[in-house]
Amino acid sequence: MNTTIPPDLRTQQEFLSQLIDCKHLIASGEPGVYGRGMEFERVRTAVDSLITSISAPDCPETPRFPPIIPKSTLEKAGYLKSFPNLCGAVFSFAGKESAAVDLLERVKRGDDWGMHLSMTDVVLNPAACYPAYPAVARRGPLPPGGILLDLGASYVFRNEPSPDPARLQVFHQREMVRMGDTDDVLQWRELWMSRATTIFARLGLDAKLDVASDPFFGRAGKLLANSQRAQNLKFEVLVPIASTERTAVASFNYHQEHFGSAFGIRLHDGGVANTACLGFGLERISLALFRKHGLETNTWSSEVRDQLGNWL
Amino acid sequence: MNTTIPPDLRTQQEFLSQLIDCKHLIASGEPGVYGRGMEFERVRTAVDSLITSISAPDCPETPRFPPIIPKSTLEKAGYLKSFPNLCGAVFSFAGKESAAVDLLERVKRGDDWGMHLSMTDVVLNPAACYPAYPAVARRGPLPPGGILLDLGASYVFRNEPSPDPARLQVFHQREMVRMGDTDDVLQWRELWMSRATTIFARLGLDAKLDVASDPFFGRAGKLLANSQRAQNLKFEVLVPIASTERTAVASFNYHQEHFGSAFGIRLHDGGVANTACLGFGLERISLALFRKHGLETNTWSSEVRDQLGNWL
Repeated sequence: MNTTIPPDLRTQQEFLSQLIDCKHLIASGEPGVYGRGMEFERVRTAVDSLITSISAPDCPETPRFPPIIPKSTLEKAGYLKSFPNLCGAVFSFAGKESAAVDLLERVKRGDDWGMHLSMTDVVLNPAACYPAYPAVARRGPLPPGGILLDLGASYVFRNEPSPDPARLQVFHQREMVRMGDTDDVLQWRELWMSRATTIFARLGLDAKLDVASDPFFGRAGKLLANSQRAQNLKFEVLVPIASTERTAVASFNYHQEHFGSAFGIRLHDGGVANTACLGFGLERISLALFRKHGLETNTWSSEVRDQLGNWL
Repeated sequence: MNTTIPPDLRTQQEFLSQLIDCKHLIASGEPGVYGRGMEFERVRTAVDSLITSISAPDCPETPRFPPIIPKSTLEKAGYLKSFPNLCGAVFSFAGKESAAVDLLERVKRGDDWGMHLSMTDVVLNPAACYPAYPAVARRGPLPPGGILLDLGASYVFRNEPSPDPARLQVFHQREMVRMGDTDDVLQWRELWMSRATTIFARLGLDAKLDVASDPFFGRAGKLLANSQRAQNLKFEVLVPIASTERTAVASFNYHQEHFGSAFGIRLHDGGVANTACLGFGLERISLALFRKHGLETNTWSSEVRDQLGNWL
């Protein structure tokens, strides 16, 4: 019998055990779903505040969106073509009392009770920027120069249970979106890729900016991923966390006219808007900091602590 | 043809229109699912900070939990007996490429695509305190005197689409939980009912504390609700928002041994723990403030603004 555990899995299990032992993460019994302890939250919100301090001079609008969105938004965004396996649709019970009795008996027996549920009109939000597109489209054409939104730290969901503490089913994406013409959005993306490199260097993380692709579903997905890379549509900042390969902690995405066209976002001259977004994975950045600098923040170097300033 | 709109509905539609016009709420196309503008968020987080300032001297633990929980936690908590119609179970796609093709064609035709999805092991969290019970049970018996958790502002989900802006499908519950013996938890609940009355008076809201019951499902639900009232298990603070009847903005719940027994939470002497929780509905309190004091915070009286202090 071969009982060898793959090295990545062993590393991830060990790191997860450490995180749980020192109360940074709280096990729920479900992989990729954890509570977060006080010190972990101090780090996560300090990283969030550091990003806010860098974003604030740009004077973005700062709307906030909840973790569920209309099903129609997911459909229009094209998510079901690219990532059907990662979606989270919300089902509920709309039956009569007799069905509720059977549902409850199934729960008691440990049987499946999904057949008693039906689809609602909402889904979990898989990408923090999605609710922003229909909201902006409803306002009418963009002003000259376009707009910038800082959506704060939004919960997003991905159906990918994993033993890697850096791959959560639900996590905080610190998200910003730029909408305008091609130059507007590409210049803004360049600016933030440069800012991000500075942020991670200051935090003492061994970060690499690289062209990247999304995990598109199915055989056709490989072609989509190749095309995305060839056009430099996605960049990621990658750092070592708990795998032999680096883990993405931030991404910078140029959508061309995809969302402008899908949701009817117009420029002031009537043309279709271009969009770009960026997301910082706040839990992953926090995990990278604990991994690199140690599990107790009071042992971190003054250089790193100074960056997180009064927030830590 | 009778085109009379019920007075509650008209009031709710008018208030919702006002809230959207002045950018406090951002329509999503789905009732009960809204983005929130900057000024609304300033009020919501100021109320949260006010509650934190009152809670802090009690030195609670401050863990944070995400908006999804294991399906098994919902089952053990007994939610499916009491509120199956309000639950939100997360379904996803685990099929092959051919099924994904059919799913996508259904989306394009505007047809239902739910038959291609299957139940995952996670559900939306309907009550901010739920993830705390298994987490505490895993630690072993409570220390003498029990424990106090301040869970911060947690997103919770209820499947109840409504035209009332004060009835959201997803909202922030500012939640605390006390676990210990009967006296521990009842004294703590008394303390907070008194604190809450003071908070709402200071905020200039016409608040009423009253015994209450949950909207239990089905015919048996009426008996459960009567029993809950007869035993004074639930109190609510109610204020006028956008209905002829007052709307609950905070609740104070004594669970007796329900969760202690369901999740195996033990006292230091081996007995089953009692629990109580309280929740402040942050969006509802914010809406009540806008309704009472006006849609622009800079017109609010200095008495109210002073309460929200530096946070506003």
